[in-house]
Amino acid sequence: MIKSLEWIEGGIRILDQTHLPHEEVYVECRDVSSIAEAIRSMRIRGAPAIGVAAAAAMALGAQTIQEQTFEAFSTKLSALGEDLAKARPTAVNLKWGIERMKQAALKSRDLPLPALKEALVAEAKAILEEDIRINQAIGAKGQVLIQDGSRILTHCNTGSLATAGYGTALGVIRSAKASGKRIEVLANETRPFLQGARLTAWELLKEGIPFSLITDSMAGSFMHRGMVDLVLVGADRIAANGDVANKIGTYTLAVLAKEHGIPFYVAAPLSTLDLTLQSGDEIPIEERSPEEVTHIGGRSIAPPGITAKNPAFDITPARYVTAMITERGIAYPPYKESLRRLVER
Amino acid sequence: MIKSLEWIEGGIRILDQTHLPHEEVYVECRDVSSIAEAIRSMRIRGAPAIGVAAAAAMALGAQTIQEQTFEAFSTKLSALGEDLAKARPTAVNLKWGIERMKQAALKSRDLPLPALKEALVAEAKAILEEDIRINQAIGAKGQVLIQDGSRILTHCNTGSLATAGYGTALGVIRSAKASGKRIEVLANETRPFLQGARLTAWELLKEGIPFSLITDSMAGSFMHRGMVDLVLVGADRIAANGDVANKIGTYTLAVLAKEHGIPFYVAAPLSTLDLTLQSGDEIPIEERSPEEVTHIGGRSIAPPGITAKNPAFDITPARYVTAMITERGIAYPPYKESLRRLVER
Repeated sequence: MIKSLEWIEGGIRILDQTHLPHEEVYVECRDVSSIAEAIRSMRIRGAPAIGVAAAAAMALGAQTIQEQTFEAFSTKLSALGEDLAKARPTAVNLKWGIERMKQAALKSRDLPLPALKEALVAEAKAILEEDIRINQAIGAKGQVLIQDGSRILTHCNTGSLATAGYGTALGVIRSAKASGKRIEVLANETRPFLQGARLTAWELLKEGIPFSLITDSMAGSFMHRGMVDLVLVGADRIAANGDVANKIGTYTLAVLAKEHGIPFYVAAPLSTLDLTLQSGDEIPIEERSPEEVTHIGGRSIAPPGITAKNPAFDITPARYVTAMITERGIAYPPYKESLRRLVER
Repeated sequence: MIKSLEWIEGGIRILDQTHLPHEEVYVECRDVSSIAEAIRSMRIRGAPAIGVAAAAAMALGAQTIQEQTFEAFSTKLSALGEDLAKARPTAVNLKWGIERMKQAALKSRDLPLPALKEALVAEAKAILEEDIRINQAIGAKGQVLIQDGSRILTHCNTGSLATAGYGTALGVIRSAKASGKRIEVLANETRPFLQGARLTAWELLKEGIPFSLITDSMAGSFMHRGMVDLVLVGADRIAANGDVANKIGTYTLAVLAKEHGIPFYVAAPLSTLDLTLQSGDEIPIEERSPEEVTHIGGRSIAPPGITAKNPAFDITPARYVTAMITERGIAYPPYKESLRRLVER
């Protein structure tokens, strides 16, 4: 299985996704700042993978704290978390990973500090393993929505690379294939960062799942020509009412799916749910460098000196979402109730 | 004014758009095959510009015909036209330019052949001049649809580069600005060929019209956030019922505009109208090389050996089009009647 990150002696090893699909380059990170940099520059990306990497960063950061009382230790750990949380604002899993590590520290507060520090490494490793199991559960629950012979349109990368392994939306696709269904994928290239062309294509090729790469601008035409049976995407944050923040371009697919009467499914772990937000209007949208739009692979594709916009995510209102696939089952509208029920179960 | 092509001694000079925006490279074409190659490889592109280039190719080809009777000459000229017509199948202006030159030959059939050949060069030059006047008329008629302060979303390149000069949709934008309206443009980069990033950005920058470059996947989000007042695009062929073939991605913008209650305008000369086709279903859609999707600027952005689709155009059904702007005025639904009225006027 492809591993987006794994534990090594004294740190983690990250498959640097900025070099894919042409080179498999790994970076070793042994402190918070190198993991924060890897998240910021999207060497590792995907909401669940960011959560797992954040937990690892907290565990590694904890080792460097010299304070001798739990209170002082805890204050330092929180400060590390605050810095780390700034790396990327939209995916809630980053905060979720940090919070979970702070909770783990609190739970072990009575341990001597060296043992507490060890417990935090164990927790970060457990979060990684848990993420894989959660994705497998999402796949198993979600694949029942996919008919034999389905042509599935997907956006961005939601596979092993976007998680600790297996994937969310791509996990559902993997699971449908494993259950013997003949499926075909249309993969949006996903400008500006080309996660579809670079990462999803790479994973689907390794997996032997038949697919065609298209530009984002082609999705509507393929739907219009009756060549898409369902849309399946991931999520970076889901508000309490079911509004979904996901990779820029997702909202357009949702509108197109509605226009053509095609189901639009979102697959995400419950850690992507942010019940503190009433609606998607409250989700912060990361604006990244305009250079990601004006340059591709370091080469300029536009005249110098122009203005370009680069919102990395958009919000899809809940009313466009046919169903949400989580590790605890499938939620249907109204999401305010159905998502809460899954969380409280 | 930017000149996409102009007459030189014994041929035409084409601004090679595959090198823009970084280099202004010109190619000189003195025969049919070099112009056909320039059209095929999109050194010159845009439906009206293709029509003008096709007329020039016919005029240059005519000079090489050795036959001494009009019938024999005419047969050879038709054969040249048939070859040329294969260069790109979707834009009807290519055929229109060829047909118009055949008609011009017929009209001058009583002239001695040397004089007939001269008449054909004069006709091709007249078509070029006429295209500029037609575009200026489209601009003047269309700019009344644009309010002061409008934020206009556009796709592909429909400017001087797509025509003999001035432009269709971009001509309307130019004309709105010239009439003193404060406007702002959002330019879709237009994958795979990046006509928006490379060509429209280059023209808007030269023109001093404020604009931002976005990826095609961002258009929906900007509409959702209330940042687009109207969509304005060109056309490569319009069927009798008003269905529009235009650059891939246009249909998606039309669906998004409808969803947000935003007007969707098409600007095109009447030469883009194909009354022989009842609906858009009959318009042939050019499928170009998958390499345009898997490579950008000659560099691979996807794993080798994958399948990619590359339909260069899509069909926007007439029901999505708020109005069509032509050199003879603005057509409103039902287009079957309104377009015919403009043609017959």
